[in-house]
Amino acid sequence: MPRFKLTLAYDGAGFVGWQRQASGTSIQGTLEAVLEELDGREVGVAAAGRTDAGVHARGQVVSLSLERPFEPGTLRRALNAHLPDTIRVLTVETVPARFHARFDARAKTYCYRIWNDEVLDPFERWCVWHVPAPILDVDAMRAAARGLVGRHDFASFQGTGSTTPETVRELFGFEVSSSGPLITYRVRGSGFLRHMVRNIAGTLVDVGAGRRAADEVDALIAARDRTQAGRTAPPQGLFLMNVEYDAAATSLAAER
Amino acid sequence: MPRFKLTLAYDGAGFVGWQRQASGTSIQGTLEAVLEELDGREVGVAAAGRTDAGVHARGQVVSLSLERPFEPGTLRRALNAHLPDTIRVLTVETVPARFHARFDARAKTYCYRIWNDEVLDPFERWCVWHVPAPILDVDAMRAAARGLVGRHDFASFQGTGSTTPETVRELFGFEVSSSGPLITYRVRGSGFLRHMVRNIAGTLVDVGAGRRAADEVDALIAARDRTQAGRTAPPQGLFLMNVEYDAAATSLAAER
Repeated sequence: MPRFKLTLAYDGAGFVGWQRQASGTSIQGTLEAVLEELDGREVGVAAAGRTDAGVHARGQVVSLSLERPFEPGTLRRALNAHLPDTIRVLTVETVPARFHARFDARAKTYCYRIWNDEVLDPFERWCVWHVPAPILDVDAMRAAARGLVGRHDFASFQGTGSTTPETVRELFGFEVSSSGPLITYRVRGSGFLRHMVRNIAGTLVDVGAGRRAADEVDALIAARDRTQAGRTAPPQGLFLMNVEYDAAATSLAAER
Repeated sequence: MPRFKLTLAYDGAGFVGWQRQASGTSIQGTLEAVLEELDGREVGVAAAGRTDAGVHARGQVVSLSLERPFEPGTLRRALNAHLPDTIRVLTVETVPARFHARFDARAKTYCYRIWNDEVLDPFERWCVWHVPAPILDVDAMRAAARGLVGRHDFASFQGTGSTTPETVRELFGFEVSSSGPLITYRVRGSGFLRHMVRNIAGTLVDVGAGRRAADEVDALIAARDRTQAGRTAPPQGLFLMNVEYDAAATSLAAER
Protein backbone atom coordinates (compact mmCIF):
# COMPACT_ATOMS: atom_id res chain seq x y z
CA MET A 1 0.00 0.00 0.00
CA PRO A 2 1.49 3.35 -1.00
CA ARG A 3 2.13 5.70 1.91
CA PHE A 4 1.74 9.47 1.75
CA LYS A 5 2.87 12.55 3.67
CA LEU A 6 0.47 15.48 3.40
CA THR A 7 1.18 19.05 4.48
CA LEU A 8 -2.00 20.94 5.41
CA ALA A 9 -3.06 24.50 6.14
CA TYR A 10 -6.36 25.02 7.92
CA ASP A 11 -8.45 27.69 9.55
CA GLY A 12 -9.34 26.02 12.84
CA ALA A 13 -12.17 28.43 13.69
CA GLY A 14 -15.07 26.19 12.71
CA PHE A 15 -13.65 22.89 13.99
CA VAL A 16 -13.60 21.04 17.33
CA GLY A 17 -9.86 20.58 16.74
CA TRP A 18 -7.71 18.10 14.82
CA GLN A 19 -8.99 14.98 16.55
CA ARG A 20 -12.34 13.24 16.01
CA GLN A 21 -14.78 13.96 18.83
CA ALA A 22 -18.10 12.45 19.84
CA SER A 23 -19.82 15.51 18.38
CA GLY A 24 -18.78 18.42 16.17
CA THR A 25 -16.69 18.56 13.00
CA SER A 26 -12.98 17.72 13.35
CA ILE A 27 -10.26 18.26 10.78
CA GLN A 28 -9.25 14.59 11.05
CA GLY A 29 -12.84 13.43 10.47
CA THR A 30 -13.30 15.77 7.50
CA LEU A 31 -10.06 14.61 5.88
CA GLU A 32 -10.73 10.92 6.52
CA ALA A 33 -14.22 11.16 5.00
CA VAL A 34 -12.77 12.59 1.76
CA LEU A 35 -9.97 10.01 1.67
CA GLU A 36 -12.45 7.16 2.17
CA GLU A 37 -14.49 8.51 -0.73
CA LEU A 38 -11.38 8.55 -2.94
CA ASP A 39 -9.92 5.21 -1.86
CA GLY A 40 -13.18 3.30 -1.49
CA ARG A 41 -12.35 1.94 1.98
CA GLU A 42 -11.77 3.10 5.55
CA VAL A 43 -8.66 5.28 5.88
CA GLY A 44 -6.97 6.30 9.14
CA VAL A 45 -4.66 9.30 9.32
CA ALA A 46 -2.09 10.40 11.92
CA ALA A 47 -1.11 14.04 12.43
CA ALA A 48 2.15 15.46 13.79
CA GLY A 49 0.30 17.75 16.20
CA ARG A 50 -3.22 17.23 17.55
CA THR A 51 -4.25 20.87 17.48
CA ASP A 52 -7.04 21.97 19.84
CA ALA A 53 -10.38 23.55 18.89
CA GLY A 54 -9.83 26.92 17.21
CA VAL A 55 -6.07 26.42 16.66
CA HIS A 56 -4.86 27.02 13.10
CA ALA A 57 -2.21 25.33 10.95
CA ARG A 58 0.03 26.50 8.14
CA GLY A 59 2.16 23.34 8.08
CA GLN A 60 0.43 20.42 9.80
CA VAL A 61 1.83 17.08 8.60
CA VAL A 62 -0.29 13.95 8.19
CA SER A 63 0.64 10.36 7.27
CA LEU A 64 -1.69 7.79 5.72
CA SER A 65 -1.79 4.70 3.50
CA LEU A 66 -4.07 4.19 0.52
CA GLU A 67 -4.95 1.13 -1.57
CA ARG A 68 -4.81 3.04 -4.84
CA PRO A 69 -1.44 4.17 -6.27
CA PHE A 70 -2.29 7.87 -6.59
CA GLU A 71 0.23 10.16 -8.26
CA PRO A 72 0.99 12.85 -5.59
CA GLY A 73 -0.18 15.81 -7.72
CA THR A 74 -3.41 14.02 -8.61
CA LEU A 75 -4.10 13.19 -4.96
CA ARG A 76 -3.52 16.82 -3.96
CA ARG A 77 -5.94 18.12 -6.59
CA ALA A 78 -8.57 15.48 -5.75
CA LEU A 79 -8.38 16.25 -2.02
CA ASN A 80 -8.58 20.02 -2.52
CA ALA A 81 -11.54 19.57 -4.88
CA HIS A 82 -13.49 17.71 -2.16
CA LEU A 83 -12.33 19.36 1.08
CA PRO A 84 -13.99 22.56 2.37
CA ASP A 85 -11.99 25.72 1.56
CA THR A 86 -11.05 26.02 5.25
CA ILE A 87 -8.69 23.02 4.81
CA ARG A 88 -6.10 22.97 2.02
CA VAL A 89 -3.56 20.32 1.09
CA LEU A 90 -0.36 22.24 0.30
CA THR A 91 1.87 19.30 -0.68
CA VAL A 92 1.65 15.53 -1.12
CA GLU A 93 4.74 13.30 -1.06
CA THR A 94 5.19 9.54 -1.36
CA VAL A 95 7.08 8.26 1.69
CA PRO A 96 8.42 4.94 3.05
CA ALA A 97 5.83 2.52 4.47
CA ARG A 98 7.14 3.02 8.02
CA PHE A 99 6.82 6.84 8.05
CA HIS A 100 4.63 8.19 10.88
CA ALA A 101 3.83 11.92 11.05
CA ARG A 102 3.84 12.06 14.86
CA PHE A 103 6.44 9.53 16.00
CA ASP A 104 9.03 10.56 13.40
CA ALA A 105 8.73 14.32 14.01
CA ARG A 106 12.09 15.80 15.09
CA ALA A 107 11.03 19.43 15.55
CA LYS A 108 7.93 21.57 15.38
CA THR A 109 7.49 25.30 15.02
CA TYR A 110 4.51 27.20 16.39
CA CYS A 111 3.55 30.85 16.06
CA TYR A 112 1.48 32.76 18.57
CA ARG A 113 -0.02 36.14 17.57
CA ILE A 114 -1.15 38.96 19.88
CA TRP A 115 -3.01 42.15 18.86
CA ASN A 116 -1.92 44.83 21.33
CA ASP A 117 -4.14 47.83 20.65
CA GLU A 118 -7.47 49.14 21.92
CA VAL A 119 -9.08 48.57 18.52
CA LEU A 120 -8.89 45.05 17.07
CA ASP A 121 -8.44 44.99 13.28
CA PRO A 122 -11.59 43.20 11.99
CA PHE A 123 -9.42 41.23 9.54
CA GLU A 124 -7.35 39.80 12.40
CA ARG A 125 -10.16 39.06 14.85
CA TRP A 126 -10.17 35.25 14.44
CA CYS A 127 -6.39 34.70 14.39
CA VAL A 128 -4.96 36.78 17.25
CA TRP A 129 -5.33 37.14 21.00
CA HIS A 130 -6.67 40.65 21.58
CA VAL A 131 -4.80 42.31 24.46
CA PRO A 132 -6.15 45.88 24.34
CA ALA A 133 -4.08 47.24 27.25
CA PRO A 134 -1.54 47.95 28.60
CA ILE A 135 1.01 48.46 25.85
CA LEU A 136 3.25 45.41 26.31
CA ASP A 137 7.01 45.68 26.83
CA VAL A 138 8.26 43.54 23.95
CA ASP A 139 11.89 43.71 25.11
CA ALA A 140 10.91 42.26 28.49
CA MET A 141 8.93 39.50 26.75
CA ARG A 142 11.96 38.74 24.59
CA ALA A 143 14.21 38.53 27.66
CA ALA A 144 11.78 36.14 29.37
CA ALA A 145 11.56 33.99 26.23
CA ARG A 146 15.36 33.59 26.23
CA GLY A 147 15.08 31.89 29.63
CA LEU A 148 12.85 29.19 28.12
CA VAL A 149 15.25 28.14 25.38
CA GLY A 150 17.11 24.90 26.02
CA ARG A 151 16.30 21.55 27.61
CA HIS A 152 13.97 21.96 30.59
CA ASP A 153 11.22 20.24 32.51
CA PHE A 154 8.20 22.25 31.33
CA ALA A 155 5.71 20.76 33.86
CA SER A 156 4.75 24.30 34.96
CA PHE A 157 3.52 24.97 31.43
CA GLN A 158 1.61 21.72 30.89
CA GLY A 159 -2.20 21.92 30.56
CA THR A 160 -4.00 20.97 33.77
CA GLY A 161 -5.41 17.47 33.58
CA SER A 162 -2.74 16.33 31.14
CA THR A 163 -1.18 13.03 32.17
CA THR A 164 2.01 12.98 30.08
CA PRO A 165 4.57 11.39 32.45
CA GLU A 166 7.64 12.80 30.71
CA THR A 167 7.59 16.60 30.77
CA VAL A 168 11.13 17.39 29.64
CA ARG A 169 11.27 19.11 26.26
CA GLU A 170 13.91 21.07 24.37
CA LEU A 171 13.24 24.48 22.83
CA PHE A 172 15.73 25.20 20.05
CA GLY A 173 14.72 28.82 19.49
CA PHE A 174 12.20 31.45 20.54
CA GLU A 175 11.78 34.70 18.60
CA VAL A 176 9.58 37.58 19.69
CA SER A 177 8.91 40.19 17.03
CA SER A 178 6.51 43.10 16.66
CA SER A 179 5.10 45.07 13.77
CA GLY A 180 2.72 47.88 14.73
CA PRO A 181 0.14 46.44 17.17
CA LEU A 182 0.95 42.84 16.21
CA ILE A 183 3.32 40.87 18.47
CA THR A 184 4.38 37.44 17.20
CA TYR A 185 6.22 34.62 18.96
CA ARG A 186 7.85 31.93 16.88
CA VAL A 187 9.03 28.94 18.89
CA ARG A 188 10.82 25.84 17.58
CA GLY A 189 11.26 22.77 19.76
CA SER A 190 11.70 19.01 19.91
CA GLY A 191 8.11 18.63 21.06
CA PHE A 192 5.47 20.42 23.08
CA LEU A 193 3.26 19.48 26.02
CA ARG A 194 -0.48 20.04 25.84
CA HIS A 195 -1.28 23.80 25.95
CA MET A 196 2.44 24.53 26.42
CA VAL A 197 2.69 27.28 23.78
CA ARG A 198 -0.53 28.92 24.98
CA ASN A 199 0.56 28.75 28.64
CA ILE A 200 3.89 30.30 27.71
CA ALA A 201 2.01 32.99 25.73
CA GLY A 202 -0.09 33.85 28.80
CA THR A 203 3.04 34.03 30.95
CA LEU A 204 4.90 36.27 28.49
CA VAL A 205 1.95 38.67 28.33
CA ASP A 206 2.14 38.89 32.13
CA VAL A 207 5.81 39.84 31.75
CA GLY A 208 5.05 42.36 28.97
CA ALA A 209 2.33 43.95 31.13
CA GLY A 210 4.73 44.29 34.08
CA ARG A 211 2.82 41.81 36.27
CA ARG A 212 5.90 39.52 36.42
CA ALA A 213 9.63 40.08 36.07
CA ALA A 214 11.38 38.64 33.00
CA ASP A 215 13.89 36.84 35.24
CA GLU A 216 11.13 34.93 37.07
CA VAL A 217 11.19 32.33 34.29
CA ASP A 218 13.95 30.21 35.86
CA ALA A 219 12.01 29.96 39.12
CA LEU A 220 8.80 29.17 37.22
CA ILE A 221 10.47 26.27 35.42
CA ALA A 222 12.04 25.02 38.66
CA ALA A 223 8.66 25.08 40.44
CA ARG A 224 7.18 22.39 38.16
CA ASP A 225 3.77 23.77 39.21
CA ARG A 226 1.11 24.72 36.68
CA THR A 227 -0.58 27.12 39.09
CA GLN A 228 2.45 29.42 39.14
CA ALA A 229 2.63 30.19 35.38
CA GLY A 230 0.28 32.54 33.52
CA ARG A 231 -3.18 31.80 32.17
CA THR A 232 -3.73 29.73 29.02
CA ALA A 233 -3.85 32.15 26.09
CA PRO A 234 -6.84 31.65 23.75
CA PRO A 235 -6.56 29.13 20.88
CA GLN A 236 -7.20 31.45 17.93
CA GLY A 237 -3.75 33.11 18.24
CA LEU A 238 -1.94 29.78 17.77
CA PHE A 239 -0.62 28.39 14.45
CA LEU A 240 1.24 25.13 13.86
CA MET A 241 3.72 26.39 11.27
CA ASN A 242 6.09 23.59 10.42
CA VAL A 243 7.13 20.02 11.29
CA GLU A 244 10.61 18.66 10.58
CA TYR A 245 11.76 15.10 9.90
CA ASP A 246 15.05 13.36 9.27
CA ALA A 247 15.61 12.86 5.55
CA ALA A 248 15.84 9.09 6.16
CA ALA A 249 12.27 8.99 7.50
CA THR A 250 10.66 10.56 4.43
CA SER A 251 12.99 9.58 1.58
CA LEU A 252 12.03 6.64 -0.62
CA ALA A 253 15.61 6.45 -1.91
CA ALA A 254 16.87 5.84 1.64
CA GLU A 255 14.47 2.92 2.01
CA ARG A 256 16.33 0.77 -0.51
CA MET B 1 -25.46 69.86 16.92
CA PRO B 2 -21.88 68.57 16.99
CA ARG B 3 -20.76 66.96 13.74
CA PHE B 4 -18.40 64.00 13.55
CA LYS B 5 -16.16 62.32 11.00
CA LEU B 6 -15.66 58.59 11.62
CA THR B 7 -13.08 56.37 9.91
CA LEU B 8 -14.19 52.72 9.78
CA ALA B 9 -12.71 49.34 8.96
CA TYR B 10 -15.08 46.50 8.23
CA ASP B 11 -15.16 42.93 7.01
CA GLY B 12 -17.90 43.12 4.40
CA ALA B 13 -18.41 39.35 4.16
CA GLY B 14 -21.56 39.12 6.27
CA PHE B 15 -23.26 42.30 5.04
CA VAL B 16 -25.53 43.25 2.14
CA GLY B 17 -23.17 46.21 1.59
CA TRP B 18 -22.86 49.69 3.05
CA GLN B 19 -26.36 50.87 2.23
CA ARG B 20 -29.60 49.91 4.00
CA GLN B 21 -31.60 47.38 1.99
CA ALA B 22 -35.15 46.08 2.26
CA SER B 23 -33.74 42.88 3.77
CA GLY B 24 -30.38 41.76 5.15
CA THR B 25 -27.92 43.50 7.47
CA SER B 26 -26.13 46.57 6.10
CA ILE B 27 -23.17 48.34 7.62
CA GLN B 28 -25.08 51.64 7.52
CA GLY B 29 -28.06 50.11 9.33
CA THR B 30 -25.86 48.49 11.97
CA LEU B 31 -24.00 51.74 12.65
CA GLU B 32 -27.17 53.86 12.72
CA ALA B 33 -28.83 51.50 15.20
CA VAL B 34 -25.90 51.85 17.63
CA LEU B 35 -25.78 55.65 17.18
CA GLU B 36 -29.52 55.94 17.83
CA GLU B 37 -29.05 53.95 21.03
CA LEU B 38 -26.27 56.31 22.15
CA ASP B 39 -27.91 59.58 21.11
CA GLY B 40 -31.50 58.69 22.01
CA ARG B 41 -32.94 59.78 18.64
CA GLU B 42 -32.88 58.89 14.96
CA VAL B 43 -29.43 59.41 13.41
CA GLY B 44 -28.64 59.43 9.68
CA VAL B 45 -25.10 58.81 8.42
CA ALA B 46 -23.46 59.43 5.04
CA ALA B 47 -20.47 57.43 3.77
CA ALA B 48 -17.77 58.44 1.32
CA GLY B 49 -18.20 55.23 -0.71
CA ARG B 50 -21.30 53.05 -0.80
CA THR B 51 -19.48 49.72 -0.89
CA ASP B 52 -21.33 46.73 -2.38
CA ALA B 53 -22.16 43.44 -0.66
CA GLY B 54 -18.98 41.59 0.31
CA VAL B 55 -16.65 44.58 -0.26
CA HIS B 56 -14.34 45.43 2.65
CA ALA B 57 -13.06 48.72 4.08
CA ARG B 58 -9.91 49.77 5.87
CA GLY B 59 -10.62 53.50 5.66
CA GLN B 60 -14.29 54.20 4.95
CA VAL B 61 -15.27 57.72 6.08
CA VAL B 62 -18.68 58.57 7.52
CA SER B 63 -20.23 61.91 8.57
CA LEU B 64 -23.05 62.38 11.08
CA SER B 65 -24.51 64.81 13.59
CA LEU B 66 -25.47 64.01 17.19
CA GLU B 67 -27.48 65.86 19.81
CA ARG B 68 -25.08 64.98 22.60
CA PRO B 69 -21.66 66.66 22.77
CA PHE B 70 -19.57 63.47 22.85
CA GLU B 71 -15.84 63.72 23.36
CA PRO B 72 -14.32 61.97 20.26
CA GLY B 73 -12.42 59.31 22.26
CA THR B 74 -15.50 58.52 24.33
CA LEU B 75 -17.65 58.19 21.20
CA ARG B 76 -15.11 55.84 19.61
CA ARG B 77 -15.02 53.59 22.68
CA ALA B 78 -18.82 53.58 23.04
CA LEU B 79 -19.32 52.69 19.37
CA ASN B 80 -16.73 49.90 19.41
CA ALA B 81 -18.26 48.50 22.60
CA HIS B 82 -21.67 48.18 20.89
CA LEU B 83 -20.79 47.37 17.26
CA PRO B 84 -20.10 43.77 16.15
CA ASP B 85 -16.38 42.97 15.87
CA THR B 86 -16.70 42.92 12.07
CA ILE B 87 -17.03 46.74 12.15
CA ARG B 88 -14.48 48.90 13.99
CA VAL B 89 -14.31 52.65 14.42
CA LEU B 90 -10.64 53.55 13.93
CA THR B 91 -10.86 57.30 14.54
CA VAL B 92 -13.44 59.94 15.50
CA GLU B 93 -12.93 63.65 14.79
CA THR B 94 -15.11 66.69 15.41
CA VAL B 95 -15.66 68.52 12.10
CA PRO B 96 -17.45 71.64 10.83
CA ALA B 97 -21.26 71.45 10.59
CA ARG B 98 -21.16 71.53 6.78
CA PHE B 99 -18.77 68.55 6.37
CA HIS B 100 -20.17 65.74 4.21
CA ALA B 101 -18.22 62.49 3.81
CA ARG B 102 -19.31 61.91 0.21
CA PHE B 103 -19.66 65.37 -1.33
CA ASP B 104 -16.44 66.71 0.18
CA ALA B 105 -14.25 63.72 -0.79
CA ARG B 106 -11.36 64.82 -3.02
CA ALA B 107 -9.72 61.43 -3.61
CA LYS B 108 -10.27 57.78 -2.76
CA THR B 109 -7.90 54.83 -2.76
CA TYR B 110 -9.02 51.27 -3.38
CA CYS B 111 -7.06 48.02 -3.24
CA TYR B 112 -7.92 44.91 -5.21
CA ARG B 113 -6.30 41.59 -4.23
CA ILE B 114 -5.85 38.48 -6.41
CA TRP B 115 -4.59 35.06 -5.28
CA ASN B 116 -2.81 33.53 -8.28
CA ASP B 117 -2.04 29.95 -7.34
CA GLU B 118 -3.76 26.57 -7.67
CA VAL B 119 -4.15 26.31 -3.87
CA LEU B 120 -5.97 29.17 -2.14
CA ASP B 121 -4.53 30.01 1.30
CA PRO B 122 -7.44 29.31 3.72
CA PHE B 123 -6.59 32.52 5.60
CA GLU B 124 -7.07 34.61 2.45
CA ARG B 125 -10.20 32.91 1.12
CA TRP B 126 -12.66 35.70 1.98
CA CYS B 127 -10.52 38.67 0.92
CA VAL B 128 -9.04 37.79 -2.48
CA TRP B 129 -10.21 36.82 -5.94
CA HIS B 130 -8.87 33.29 -6.51
CA VAL B 131 -7.41 32.99 -10.03
CA PRO B 132 -5.83 29.50 -9.96
CA ALA B 133 -4.43 29.59 -13.52
CA PRO B 134 -2.70 30.64 -15.66
CA ILE B 135 0.20 32.35 -13.90
CA LEU B 136 -0.53 36.01 -14.65
CA ASP B 137 1.99 38.31 -16.34
CA VAL B 138 2.25 41.08 -13.74
CA ASP B 139 4.42 43.28 -15.99
CA ALA B 140 1.74 43.23 -18.68
CA MET B 141 -0.92 44.10 -16.08
CA ARG B 142 1.24 46.98 -14.88
CA ALA B 143 1.64 48.27 -18.44
CA ALA B 144 -2.12 48.12 -19.00
CA ALA B 145 -2.76 49.92 -15.70
CA ARG B 146 -0.51 52.80 -16.80
CA GLY B 147 -2.90 53.42 -19.72
CA LEU B 148 -5.75 54.03 -17.27
CA VAL B 149 -4.03 56.77 -15.28
CA GLY B 150 -5.21 60.32 -16.05
CA ARG B 151 -8.52 61.97 -16.87
CA HIS B 152 -10.72 59.70 -19.00
CA ASP B 153 -14.31 58.83 -19.75
CA PHE B 154 -14.57 55.47 -17.96
CA ALA B 155 -18.02 54.51 -19.38
CA SER B 156 -16.58 51.17 -20.58
CA PHE B 157 -15.84 50.29 -16.93
CA GLN B 158 -19.16 51.40 -15.43
CA GLY B 159 -21.44 48.73 -13.96
CA THR B 160 -24.26 47.76 -16.30
CA GLY B 161 -27.55 49.35 -15.25
CA SER B 162 -25.78 52.29 -13.63
CA THR B 163 -27.34 55.61 -14.64
CA THR B 164 -24.60 58.08 -13.68
CA PRO B 165 -24.72 60.67 -16.49
CA GLU B 166 -21.18 61.97 -15.99
CA THR B 167 -18.65 59.18 -16.53
CA VAL B 168 -15.41 61.19 -16.66
CA ARG B 169 -13.09 60.48 -13.72
CA GLU B 170 -9.43 61.08 -13.02
CA LEU B 171 -7.07 58.37 -11.78
CA PHE B 172 -4.05 59.89 -10.03
CA GLY B 173 -2.09 56.66 -9.67
CA PHE B 174 -2.30 52.92 -10.20
CA GLU B 175 0.23 50.54 -8.65
CA VAL B 176 0.39 46.81 -9.37
CA SER B 177 2.55 44.80 -6.99
CA SER B 178 3.05 41.12 -6.28
CA SER B 179 4.37 39.09 -3.38
CA GLY B 180 4.38 35.34 -3.89
CA PRO B 181 0.95 34.30 -5.21
CA LEU B 182 -0.68 37.58 -4.09
CA ILE B 183 -1.14 40.33 -6.70
CA THR B 184 -2.38 43.69 -5.41
CA TYR B 185 -3.62 46.75 -7.26
CA ARG B 186 -3.73 50.07 -5.48
CA VAL B 187 -5.61 52.78 -7.35
CA ARG B 188 -6.13 56.40 -6.27
CA GLY B 189 -8.60 58.62 -8.07
CA SER B 190 -10.92 61.62 -7.86
CA GLY B 191 -13.90 59.30 -7.81
CA PHE B 192 -15.06 55.96 -9.12
CA LEU B 193 -18.08 54.77 -11.08
CA ARG B 194 -20.13 51.84 -9.82
CA HIS B 195 -18.14 48.57 -10.17
CA MET B 196 -15.32 50.51 -11.85
CA VAL B 197 -12.46 49.04 -9.80
CA ARG B 198 -13.86 45.51 -10.13
CA ASN B 199 -14.38 45.91 -13.89
CA ILE B 200 -10.81 47.18 -14.25
CA ALA B 201 -9.62 44.20 -12.14
CA GLY B 202 -11.38 41.77 -14.49
CA THR B 203 -9.85 43.49 -17.52
CA LEU B 204 -6.32 43.47 -16.05
CA VAL B 205 -6.61 39.75 -15.29
CA ASP B 206 -7.51 39.21 -18.96
CA VAL B 207 -4.31 41.09 -19.86
CA GLY B 208 -2.24 39.09 -17.35
CA ALA B 209 -3.64 35.84 -18.73
CA GLY B 210 -2.73 36.86 -22.30
CA ARG B 211 -6.37 37.08 -23.44
CA ARG B 212 -5.93 40.80 -24.23
CA ALA B 213 -2.96 43.00 -25.14
CA ALA B 214 -1.81 45.60 -22.61
CA ASP B 215 -2.08 48.33 -25.25
CA GLU B 216 -5.78 47.61 -25.88
CA VAL B 217 -6.64 49.87 -22.94
CA ASP B 218 -6.74 53.08 -25.02
CA ALA B 219 -9.21 51.52 -27.46
CA LEU B 220 -11.29 50.14 -24.56
CA ILE B 221 -11.59 53.60 -23.03
CA ALA B 222 -12.42 55.17 -26.41
CA ALA B 223 -15.17 52.58 -27.05
CA ARG B 224 -17.29 53.82 -24.11
CA ASP B 225 -18.92 50.36 -24.21
CA ARG B 226 -19.24 48.18 -21.11
CA THR B 227 -19.49 44.98 -23.18
CA GLN B 228 -15.91 45.39 -24.43
CA ALA B 229 -14.13 45.44 -21.06
CA GLY B 230 -13.50 42.39 -18.87
CA ARG B 231 -15.87 40.73 -16.45
CA THR B 232 -16.68 42.23 -13.04
CA ALA B 233 -14.20 40.78 -10.55
CA PRO B 234 -15.80 39.39 -7.36
CA PRO B 235 -16.45 41.76 -4.44
CA GLN B 236 -14.37 40.03 -1.76
CA GLY B 237 -11.04 41.14 -3.32
CA LEU B 238 -11.95 44.84 -3.00
CA PHE B 239 -11.00 47.15 -0.11
CA LEU B 240 -11.80 50.84 0.28
CA MET B 241 -8.49 51.95 1.80
CA ASN B 242 -8.57 55.69 2.22
CA VAL B 243 -10.60 58.86 1.54
CA GLU B 244 -8.99 62.30 1.31
CA TYR B 245 -10.45 65.74 2.05
CA ASP B 246 -9.26 69.33 1.85
CA ALA B 247 -8.06 70.53 5.24
CA ALA B 248 -10.65 73.32 5.08
CA ALA B 249 -13.52 70.79 4.93
CA THR B 250 -12.57 68.96 8.12
CA SER B 251 -10.81 71.61 10.21
CA LEU B 252 -12.77 73.33 12.96
CA ALA B 253 -10.15 76.09 13.07
CA ALA B 254 -10.85 76.93 9.42
CA GLU B 255 -14.56 77.33 10.19
CA ARG B 256 -14.07 80.46 12.25
